[in-house]
Amino acid sequence: MTDNTHAPVVDFRASRGARLQPVPPTAVTLAGRFWGPRLQRIRETSLPSQHALLESTGRLDNFRRVAGTSDKPYTGLFFNDSDIYKWLEAAAWAQAAGPVPELQALIDQTIPLVEAAQGEDGYINTYHSLERRHERWSNLRDLHELYCGGHLMQAAVAMHRITGDARLLRVACRFADLICTVFGPAAEGRLEMIDGHEEVEMGLIELARETGERRYRELARFFIEARGHGLLHGGRFGIEYFQDERPVREMKALAGHAVRAVYMACGITDQAMDDGDAPLLAHLETLWTEMTRRRSYISGGIGSRHEGEAFGKDFELPNARAYTETCAAIGSLMWSHRLLAATGDARYADSIEWTLYNGMLPGWGLDGRRYFYVNPLEDDGTHQRQTWYECSCCPPNVARTLGGLSGYAYATSEGAVWVHLYAEGRARVELGAGRTVELVQRTDYPWDGAVAIEIAAGGGRFALKLRVPAWCRAGARAEVNGVAVGDAVEPGRYLTIERDWQPGDTVRLELPMAVTAWQSHPQLHENRGRIALSRGPLLYCLEGVDHSRALDELAIDPAGIEASFEPGTLGGAVVLRGRALARGLAPAWEQGLYRPVDAPEPAADEAQVPFMAVPYFAWQNRGSSPMAVWLQRYRA
Amino acid sequence: MTDNTHAPVVDFRASRGARLQPVPPTAVTLAGRFWGPRLQRIRETSLPSQHALLESTGRLDNFRRVAGTSDKPYTGLFFNDSDIYKWLEAAAWAQAAGPVPELQALIDQTIPLVEAAQGEDGYINTYHSLERRHERWSNLRDLHELYCGGHLMQAAVAMHRITGDARLLRVACRFADLICTVFGPAAEGRLEMIDGHEEVEMGLIELARETGERRYRELARFFIEARGHGLLHGGRFGIEYFQDERPVREMKALAGHAVRAVYMACGITDQAMDDGDAPLLAHLETLWTEMTRRRSYISGGIGSRHEGEAFGKDFELPNARAYTETCAAIGSLMWSHRLLAATGDARYADSIEWTLYNGMLPGWGLDGRRYFYVNPLEDDGTHQRQTWYECSCCPPNVARTLGGLSGYAYATSEGAVWVHLYAEGRARVELGAGRTVELVQRTDYPWDGAVAIEIAAGGGRFALKLRVPAWCRAGARAEVNGVAVGDAVEPGRYLTIERDWQPGDTVRLELPMAVTAWQSHPQLHENRGRIALSRGPLLYCLEGVDHSRALDELAIDPAGIEASFEPGTLGGAVVLRGRALARGLAPAWEQGLYRPVDAPEPAADEAQVPFMAVPYFAWQNRGSSPMAVWLQRYRA
Repeated sequence: MTDNTHAPVVDFRASRGARLQPVPPTAVTLAGRFWGPRLQRIRETSLPSQHALLESTGRLDNFRRVAGTSDKPYTGLFFNDSDIYKWLEAAAWAQAAGPVPELQALIDQTIPLVEAAQGEDGYINTYHSLERRHERWSNLRDLHELYCGGHLMQAAVAMHRITGDARLLRVACRFADLICTVFGPAAEGRLEMIDGHEEVEMGLIELARETGERRYRELARFFIEARGHGLLHGGRFGIEYFQDERPVREMKALAGHAVRAVYMACGITDQAMDDGDAPLLAHLETLWTEMTRRRSYISGGIGSRHEGEAFGKDFELPNARAYTETCAAIGSLMWSHRLLAATGDARYADSIEWTLYNGMLPGWGLDGRRYFYVNPLEDDGTHQRQTWYECSCCPPNVARTLGGLSGYAYATSEGAVWVHLYAEGRARVELGAGRTVELVQRTDYPWDGAVAIEIAAGGGRFALKLRVPAWCRAGARAEVNGVAVGDAVEPGRYLTIERDWQPGDTVRLELPMAVTAWQSHPQLHENRGRIALSRGPLLYCLEGVDHSRALDELAIDPAGIEASFEPGTLGGAVVLRGRALARGLAPAWEQGLYRPVDAPEPAADEAQVPFMAVPYFAWQNRGSSPMAVWLQRYRA
Repeated sequence: MTDNTHAPVVDFRASRGARLQPVPPTAVTLAGRFWGPRLQRIRETSLPSQHALLESTGRLDNFRRVAGTSDKPYTGLFFNDSDIYKWLEAAAWAQAAGPVPELQALIDQTIPLVEAAQGEDGYINTYHSLERRHERWSNLRDLHELYCGGHLMQAAVAMHRITGDARLLRVACRFADLICTVFGPAAEGRLEMIDGHEEVEMGLIELARETGERRYRELARFFIEARGHGLLHGGRFGIEYFQDERPVREMKALAGHAVRAVYMACGITDQAMDDGDAPLLAHLETLWTEMTRRRSYISGGIGSRHEGEAFGKDFELPNARAYTETCAAIGSLMWSHRLLAATGDARYADSIEWTLYNGMLPGWGLDGRRYFYVNPLEDDGTHQRQTWYECSCCPPNVARTLGGLSGYAYATSEGAVWVHLYAEGRARVELGAGRTVELVQRTDYPWDGAVAIEIAAGGGRFALKLRVPAWCRAGARAEVNGVAVGDAVEPGRYLTIERDWQPGDTVRLELPMAVTAWQSHPQLHENRGRIALSRGPLLYCLEGVDHSRALDELAIDPAGIEASFEPGTLGGAVVLRGRALARGLAPAWEQGLYRPVDAPEPAADEAQVPFMAVPYFAWQNRGSSPMAVWLQRYRA
């Protein structure tokens, strides 16, 4: 193991526009009964089973074939290389807390395959090498050569940061060196083109940060600035699909393919932060606001439209037909992480937390082996998790995000330690000038809102900045060593406690987890008269398996809902129980879909019944049954 | 002009399962202030302008290139030939009421191009001849060779029936003869494959009916029976897209691509009717019922899903994102026409009428030059009519349907004359045994429900069967020569008046056009608390251009709505005017999409305002503005 003290998930140390510096995942452990078993499951179940699937689906054979050690034909989609790279990135981050020999063994089997598939000139893309040997860079709009390269770069950086292994970094740099000679302004005799799927921009910038190579940064800048001028014309969904309809500075809202849009936003935010480009950062904040204010599900999921895997129009957020790709939630989280570092604004940390639990986590089955690509907010019982997909971007994306999750929890700024996420665990925080503080967090979060943070070692004067989640609308309290903090503990802000800290000092934060019933904007017609339930950072849903009546027949009383931890449910979870009015469908509706309002309609039967809600992230883990997040509201 | 006495839009004369025989469009004129100008517009504006677009978009040049009289490369989509054929079919039907020299001149320019593009072996498909010369029949799943051939056959039959012109019929027969030698069971050494887009089945059956050639009928049977066994595997949307997931007899509901599904249903219904296959007909009736009962918009439109242009699940009927292709409504109408002939059940005639006015007609702009491909039931003002589409199936499909429209209005059965559609005009009805009756219909339908039908010539004993539309829920009355008919005049049934008719006898039917407010099935969540308005056979909508408040802010009072004909509105239309409560959006909603139900929310301003509704078929003819069919219902 190398010195990986400086191994942040994104490295803003040289960014002029960074207000915060994330504490690296190598310095933070997340444990407790929620995250402990989950992060173990990533390491011990998800990553090994994914690697077996990379093998069995021919993704690794494609690399062998290029190197001449297999004679199997190219198999699968043209961007399958990216799954290898995301897996490698995940396997790197998953060792942030310490070496995992089983993963390292798989890494050591895999990296040589990648090395061997690289051409002498640095080119690497197994699909093109095998299927389109003479068509290199000929269809960047559709064929993802640079997208795959971007994931290679991110994997290489993660691997280098966490384990010091430079093998993949050399591959990535050789590829980056090659594309630096290929792409650029036509006036300079280069290929003036961009990739249809953003990714290489943030890959190049992180590679520049890791290596100090300015050309990588400049190439990223070229790709960013060249976008928005219609280079990608002619596709099936139009240039908006590729965010190529106008320059980012002229965009009013993110549109088109959702994953591409947020990956684009990440790369541009990286650039703006490195440059300290305040106007561009402000514009990116506006785009983020518009996204969350008009085009996001209550789950934090984005990209509502199946057609083109795209953002819909404002308010176009169908529940059953939500597309809401797991990768899009991850991209949103990655973008919020950057904007949080740029601003220290708690709304980004709120969004990271909410999107983590309710936008991304639903995509990962409780067994660690089954995934959702599409995440509807309502289902008739037909939507099912799969162990893998033909387009299997989501599973390794979940793995790389959870692998590095502890790197999202804490940050520092001049004289301050920021706590973004609450979870049982420890953090070793470097405050500069050689000062190190060790924090121990004790909590049953997200099941319970009581959090104790102890200064376990180190100390001195600094500000401890504790996020008070926006969901905690009333009654948050804080005390230090048993003495109440004088300042108001306001939700949606960081509570700042500055003092001379001594080892043993303990802050207790009480974040009462009341059940909240949410209503939606009236223009979300589908949700009118309906409510959604949450408790703490978790969104809830009803599953048919827990109810004898159709979910659509239940009207929920938002008053008097009881929350309790049930060890036997869904691997241990807080469930919500309350009363509902069940009202059967009037028989007349069997005849058809539309009836005059004045046509006689026999009264339907009504009955008081109990209901039970479970965390939305855990749905479809007990077989197939209907599910609904938005529920009819009972009005007496 | 030939003798075109027997020129029905579909010929069921030899169908053992036909209860009714449609009266040919050559024997019926539709006139009056609604249909008169519209049918004139088809002949004088739509068809000439479409022909000019067939020319300017290269569709005709593709034929010339095959014949060697043009050197332009193939242009456009691979199934563009079908637009020529649909135009030719339309131009044939449009002459049902008499020759239109301008159209005949265009036909006479066009047919030779088609003749010249046919190969010596009978093959005709300009895309394959130019772009895939050696790939004939190699990708029937995706490339529409037989689909185009089916449209050729329908055009040829229409042309032959209406004008006696056999040129296109010879081309169609040579193509049909060719495919009879190519396709069939693999066990017989033939190509056991079907087309990904149904159409050739009904084309072949009509060609068999027109020519008496049994092989065409048998080939149609082969294509019908071969479907549903997974021959079309491997496509992007799965085999359900092509209705190939199970044999039709095992289907529970139509699914997949909507136009394909209803075209398939038409072909199978044709076969079942010719065979007199009662169990299959009964099953088709069940499929029709399921379609209308669970998967149809209140407009009669079908195929709600953009992705795959497909039927959604039951109740998946989004308003703003409705796909609802104009061609799908046409296919539904064509299918209902067949089932009506098979059964004489008024529900099919009701559906034809409703789908004609509210499902198809919205796709045709009032200027006769602009079309909708997609027909949402709600729009933010961005959906616009176009003069043409890259995939321009809808414009000529509208033209061929309206061209033959008069052929849908009347039918006969043993000793009975059926009136399906009401419109000012005349019909010459052959009752068999040389008896001919002339009917004159006087009405301002669909603007007014008073209909007078006079026996203008002929007579004798027969039953006059008058459809009492299902929308006419109360108060329909009928009288003969001033004497009330004794039988109850029930909506959704045919009123039968059997007597010895004399010239001059007049039936007066009063179909009061009250405004109806409709509600939807509770599982259409989006429409909860909302109503839609209709009057007579017309669905209504609100357009932003008529309102100063956002449509979403209006809550409509269904009581006290006044209807009046306004000559200056939309070329003359009955508009509805009434009262609405306008309620502004609470400012808190500017902040975001979701709020706790218990969060304080300042009361929004409220005001009583007038509203005005216009026929849905006429929307987006006065510039771009928001539109909504489903409206909040005001509750005092």
